[in-house]
Amino acid sequence: MTPARPATLREVAEAAGVSPSTVSLVVNKKKDARISAETRRRVRDAIRDLGYRPNALAKTLVSGSSRFIGLVADAIATTPFAGQIIHGAQDEAWKHGYALLIANTEGNSDLEKDAITMMLEHKVRGILYSTWFHRVTEIPEALREADFVLVNCFAAEDGVRAVVPDEAQGGREATELLIRAGHRRIAFINATIPAPAKDGRLAGYRAALDDGGLAFDPALVLEAYPDQEGGYDAVPALLALGATAVYCYNDRMAAGLYDGLRERGVSVPGDLSVVGFDNQEVIAAHVRPPLSTVALPHDELGAAGIRLLLGLDSPEESIVKVECPPVERASVAATDAAFTTPPDAAR
Amino acid sequence: MTPARPATLREVAEAAGVSPSTVSLVVNKKKDARISAETRRRVRDAIRDLGYRPNALAKTLVSGSSRFIGLVADAIATTPFAGQIIHGAQDEAWKHGYALLIANTEGNSDLEKDAITMMLEHKVRGILYSTWFHRVTEIPEALREADFVLVNCFAAEDGVRAVVPDEAQGGREATELLIRAGHRRIAFINATIPAPAKDGRLAGYRAALDDGGLAFDPALVLEAYPDQEGGYDAVPALLALGATAVYCYNDRMAAGLYDGLRERGVSVPGDLSVVGFDNQEVIAAHVRPPLSTVALPHDELGAAGIRLLLGLDSPEESIVKVECPPVERASVAATDAAFTTPPDAAR
Repeated sequence: MTPARPATLREVAEAAGVSPSTVSLVVNKKKDARISAETRRRVRDAIRDLGYRPNALAKTLVSGSSRFIGLVADAIATTPFAGQIIHGAQDEAWKHGYALLIANTEGNSDLEKDAITMMLEHKVRGILYSTWFHRVTEIPEALREADFVLVNCFAAEDGVRAVVPDEAQGGREATELLIRAGHRRIAFINATIPAPAKDGRLAGYRAALDDGGLAFDPALVLEAYPDQEGGYDAVPALLALGATAVYCYNDRMAAGLYDGLRERGVSVPGDLSVVGFDNQEVIAAHVRPPLSTVALPHDELGAAGIRLLLGLDSPEESIVKVECPPVERASVAATDAAFTTPPDAAR
Repeated sequence: MTPARPATLREVAEAAGVSPSTVSLVVNKKKDARISAETRRRVRDAIRDLGYRPNALAKTLVSGSSRFIGLVADAIATTPFAGQIIHGAQDEAWKHGYALLIANTEGNSDLEKDAITMMLEHKVRGILYSTWFHRVTEIPEALREADFVLVNCFAAEDGVRAVVPDEAQGGREATELLIRAGHRRIAFINATIPAPAKDGRLAGYRAALDDGGLAFDPALVLEAYPDQEGGYDAVPALLALGATAVYCYNDRMAAGLYDGLRERGVSVPGDLSVVGFDNQEVIAAHVRPPLSTVALPHDELGAAGIRLLLGLDSPEESIVKVECPPVERASVAATDAAFTTPPDAAR
């Protein structure tokens, strides 16, 4: 498919019988230019007939910055989370007349530097720098040349704008789903990997217990690798605790836990209520029973990043925390049974 | 973070004691311009000292097309597949000095038109138009103004360049994993939804049976909705067939099938061997047992799209089919048992 060559400004001018600079004035909507209504009409007709497209790049050169916002992501291909950040950022950017220039670095720092340089050369309005899991990050030197906002990560130094999920609030909501259903002995399987999510989700669990008048018992907190295999392997230790409910660090862990429980004849939620974290696409709504969980608001992280960058939001704190809303499905059952003994399957 | 204002061409010229046009000639590496080595050195020093970045947009205006390639995707946020196409396309584009301008349309045709228009205004070298599932597509009118390649979709009309997965070859390889393990009575759970994947994967199944000297039995082909729920619900009908192996239309279906089989005490692969399709992230490697499957090569679809667009590949056919490689894990066991009776669990 060879495209038709686009019409030039000069061709429009010839068709309308005016000078190229007159066409330029009409295109750029210079209201104060002395051009008659009749001339404007002829130019517009010629533009339509020839399919002329004004050149966005020329406008950028004049204004000194483009209608682009850069977005650097470190793992577009390997997690669904980057896609959701992009989605949220793009929707918000478009609302304000900006397009996203997206670069995927897969964690390669050379590629990252090249991507940021390319964005600077294209005079982006600013850059969102995002990571697929919530963590502290170094700020690449090239990034400091731009107006930037960190998304799903934050800097160790003060005053750097960032948007992150509110892990503690999410962990609190997850635990409250279980407390409200009457559970009193609630286990938490945390991740083995140090991360803001690990600390925040535990803090939320403790805060919810506290509010519910339940004592925190460190013996009820297990740790496992945050994927299906980790959840599966944690089943024997979990069942030994005699809890009636468990809150898992993430949905993948809960999915593996489901498999291990099913093999031992432990029914969810009949024998054990389960809550996850992430509301991960393709998993949470599709395991059996569908998993009650807390959503990581990746879309909103992206959108909030754009609003911060464009100065539409001006929060007092440089790090903005976005709420993780609970998503109730079918893995939590009401119970009156406090402190049940472990099912036989536990041993 | 307010960025330092970038240095201008004029400031570089002043620092080097030359005219702006001399700086421009040095930056744009005009070899034939008569500029002394000493002057070139002074300009380069000033560029380095001031951190001046040549303006990529100005170069684009001169050359008439940019170093951008547009990529339109219809579902970045809701599937991991778009991310893999982006990854493959970006890696290949960067190799050849192009950056991707990505737009996510989530299937909204107004947004799609705006995205393509924006790309045209930015003088992209061409556009990859991609869909998250393999299907026939209309060609948006705006897209015809660009040099374009369809990725993971194709047009009904002749001669439109496209890159799609080779569904039939993939279905053949999936079935062959089972035939090679000695299975003779192999069920196939196809999708209920009409699609090239449905036809192609069935054709591959038939071709593999044919090659293996096994008769095609339409009774062994079931249909289910292509997600976990569909696979789960298909279990009773599947077990009634007395097959020793089953090839599922996709991995999500296989994951749901696993749940239903586990509830009935049917062991995978001991009682039944299972093969999926997609090699879907977060699922295939992490179900129990890990699923043998066939990979949908989304990375390679993106990369091949770029090569077609840039004329680096010049295949004879306008539609290029990319191989779906088998990925062997632990869900297939060797069997000598041909034509076993269904396990008790089936009834």
